[in-house]
Amino acid sequence: MRRVVVVGLGPAGLWSAISARVADSSAEVVVLSDEKYLTYSRCGLPFVIGGEIGSFEELVITSIDKLKSLRIQVFLESRVVDVDGDEVVYEHRGELHRIKFSSLVLATGSKPFIPPIPGIDAGGVYSLRTINDGVAISKASMKARRALVIGAGAIGLEVAEALAERGLEVTVAEIMPRVLPAILDGDMARILSQAIRSSGVNLMLNSRVEEIIGNPTVSSAVVGEAEVPCDLVVVATGVRPNVDLARKVGVSIGATGGIETDEFMRTSIEGIYAAGDCAETKHLVTGRPFTPFLGSVAYRQGKVAGANAAGSSLRFAGSLGSTVLRVFGFEVGFTGLTCEQAKREGIRTVVGKVKWLTKAEYYPGAREIVVKLVFRADDGKLIGGQIVGGEAVAQRINLLAAAIACGMDAESIASIDTCYSPPVADAIEPITRAAEIALRKLRK
Amino acid sequence: MRRVVVVGLGPAGLWSAISARVADSSAEVVVLSDEKYLTYSRCGLPFVIGGEIGSFEELVITSIDKLKSLRIQVFLESRVVDVDGDEVVYEHRGELHRIKFSSLVLATGSKPFIPPIPGIDAGGVYSLRTINDGVAISKASMKARRALVIGAGAIGLEVAEALAERGLEVTVAEIMPRVLPAILDGDMARILSQAIRSSGVNLMLNSRVEEIIGNPTVSSAVVGEAEVPCDLVVVATGVRPNVDLARKVGVSIGATGGIETDEFMRTSIEGIYAAGDCAETKHLVTGRPFTPFLGSVAYRQGKVAGANAAGSSLRFAGSLGSTVLRVFGFEVGFTGLTCEQAKREGIRTVVGKVKWLTKAEYYPGAREIVVKLVFRADDGKLIGGQIVGGEAVAQRINLLAAAIACGMDAESIASIDTCYSPPVADAIEPITRAAEIALRKLRK
Repeated sequence: MRRVVVVGLGPAGLWSAISARVADSSAEVVVLSDEKYLTYSRCGLPFVIGGEIGSFEELVITSIDKLKSLRIQVFLESRVVDVDGDEVVYEHRGELHRIKFSSLVLATGSKPFIPPIPGIDAGGVYSLRTINDGVAISKASMKARRALVIGAGAIGLEVAEALAERGLEVTVAEIMPRVLPAILDGDMARILSQAIRSSGVNLMLNSRVEEIIGNPTVSSAVVGEAEVPCDLVVVATGVRPNVDLARKVGVSIGATGGIETDEFMRTSIEGIYAAGDCAETKHLVTGRPFTPFLGSVAYRQGKVAGANAAGSSLRFAGSLGSTVLRVFGFEVGFTGLTCEQAKREGIRTVVGKVKWLTKAEYYPGAREIVVKLVFRADDGKLIGGQIVGGEAVAQRINLLAAAIACGMDAESIASIDTCYSPPVADAIEPITRAAEIALRKLRK
Repeated sequence: MRRVVVVGLGPAGLWSAISARVADSSAEVVVLSDEKYLTYSRCGLPFVIGGEIGSFEELVITSIDKLKSLRIQVFLESRVVDVDGDEVVYEHRGELHRIKFSSLVLATGSKPFIPPIPGIDAGGVYSLRTINDGVAISKASMKARRALVIGAGAIGLEVAEALAERGLEVTVAEIMPRVLPAILDGDMARILSQAIRSSGVNLMLNSRVEEIIGNPTVSSAVVGEAEVPCDLVVVATGVRPNVDLARKVGVSIGATGGIETDEFMRTSIEGIYAAGDCAETKHLVTGRPFTPFLGSVAYRQGKVAGANAAGSSLRFAGSLGSTVLRVFGFEVGFTGLTCEQAKREGIRTVVGKVKWLTKAEYYPGAREIVVKLVFRADDGKLIGGQIVGGEAVAQRINLLAAAIACGMDAESIASIDTCYSPPVADAIEPITRAAEIALRKLRK
């Protein structure tokens, strides 16, 4: 009988297990997780800190009963320390155990990148990855008055907003010249920066945190040349693939730091698969591996890895890094490549950008939305999109992601048969309008 | 010098004029309209009746100044009665005038279809097409207590909701066995019917209005075998292309009743173009002409017709009849073909249908959404989509419209790189989930 062992119970691990079960109803499916909670939404952590969601427990998205009914065996607080031939070695409550596997799925996720800032080990300095981290930050925020968030990526901004909602005075320090540097060009990021600043958050761009001061607990930080008083620091400077186990096992690690995988989510060792934040993914525009660190991608990869570990041969084509978030009252979305990223790839681009309204102008509640589409100059095909403001940004990003995957060019996007009704959409969809603007430039 | 004359100032007429101006900056551009208002949003009329929008004047979407700045001459209350060679003959305040044209755009719109019901000429019976109609219904609704709406299409339902919001007791009579029969299959329509009924509106399906009783003003109507007391009736049984002028001019009228056009929006007579509700459009799935009667299509056709009337050669590929509306708290959307329509076309279909949430389950405000995708059984390509409930339905319909235009199949839709964040989208987009369900059936 086949036994599929999955290491990790994030979305990649959970969906590996479920889809292994679906692919082979007679297989044994075992999941080992070093956490004490079942799968929960890491993406939801900032919203518990901010108070939109009542408790961290609400983030748990599965139950022992559900897993039992799927005949998935779960061992929590069980840290895999090695793989020895066809056996996984794991530690549970101080004791080592072994379990044989027919196939193995590595879904070990990622871990926060902690930059080597002097003083970063001080008390009051946190990162946000687990429920335990969330609980610690929540507790600290009750007593703290001034918070410093290092990094203005998605998690940094979400945490900054949450802490501001909790009544703290918040500074965000970002080393790059703009917020959300991985998904927005400067022109689009500026719209959001203004909103952040007018909400009262002190946003410091182009600002490196040089030192964290305070012993045993943080009292201030040196940001650029300024000293910023703070009694709580959240480090949100990105994550790195967690490949500690993968290295021990000996599977190939790619240049991005993630586990090399093919379209079947196979690693370099037969019978071993990888999925989620620990694994590389093909970028659908550049064709090269990248690590998007997205729950949505982890879910899709997990489904493929788990099914294939149980004998199927599904494919995962790759990702565009499609991202959406809502911060400081703004929805922000991205897919594909920004202009800056395209430039780094040596791709000449033509942009169509438009500021529009989300409903008919006369209908109450219409919101301003800015759509920026990035086309490849050579063939006019869409390679990226950024949206700031408005509403229904997630679905617009999904449309753009589909359009990139299909190879749609500016002309075909401009002619999408969009729908219209005053309470929900303008007669002219800003995406088609932006494509028209690009088309005019492309024809010149 | 070229003179482009446009007949009609709905969205098709307005955008014909604007794009003629853009295409040929030296052309004379003249618009003749039989209405006394500049272009306004007909789609907004129900929302003024319902009170969401303060006044009918707010629906006017252009101004004399804007048109002047574009050097577009507009003659209001000028009804074109004939075309004589290269001259348009129009009547203004009882006098006939003539104006020469180099090219002509017919944008004469549509007119309500009034079924031959005995008594339908009684006082208190209205249809809703113009601002004047809207004013009349609004006035009547102040004194009326019980309204009957004939027809449960988009306008019928919007008016029914508006009148209910105004405090009237409302009955909707629909001859077909379901609401929104042109855009929803029975299973999807039922969801909405329930919502309509629980809002207190008396919805009568499979119900023909046999007679309207009352002289000089309506007092009741015979609906099926019941007598429904009512002092206000709105006839919303669809529209027909307004081709009175087209017939006089002698351009070919198609089997749908609309003016035959090619992809350049040319009619059968050289130099004469047509756009908007009066014109036929190619259906992008069936390849056959149809008349979608949509403002969004009128706008796109107008842009093509006007530019070409001024010397360009733009193309309008066709439409999918993409529709969205919000009624009784539900967003409803459609594109392509329903199952029933596909059956009528002789297309075998496979359906993927899913009930889902619009946000992460644990995030407050997640709403239920039902997505139904219709695929062609032969090649697995998407040919239609229906959505009821939830939010951001317009943008999901736009995605499906793009997918149909691109020839996406169930597999490629299932693998769209969708984005996710708890406050705005679930980790699993219902569209991709519905495609997965269809894919499983297609593979059998």
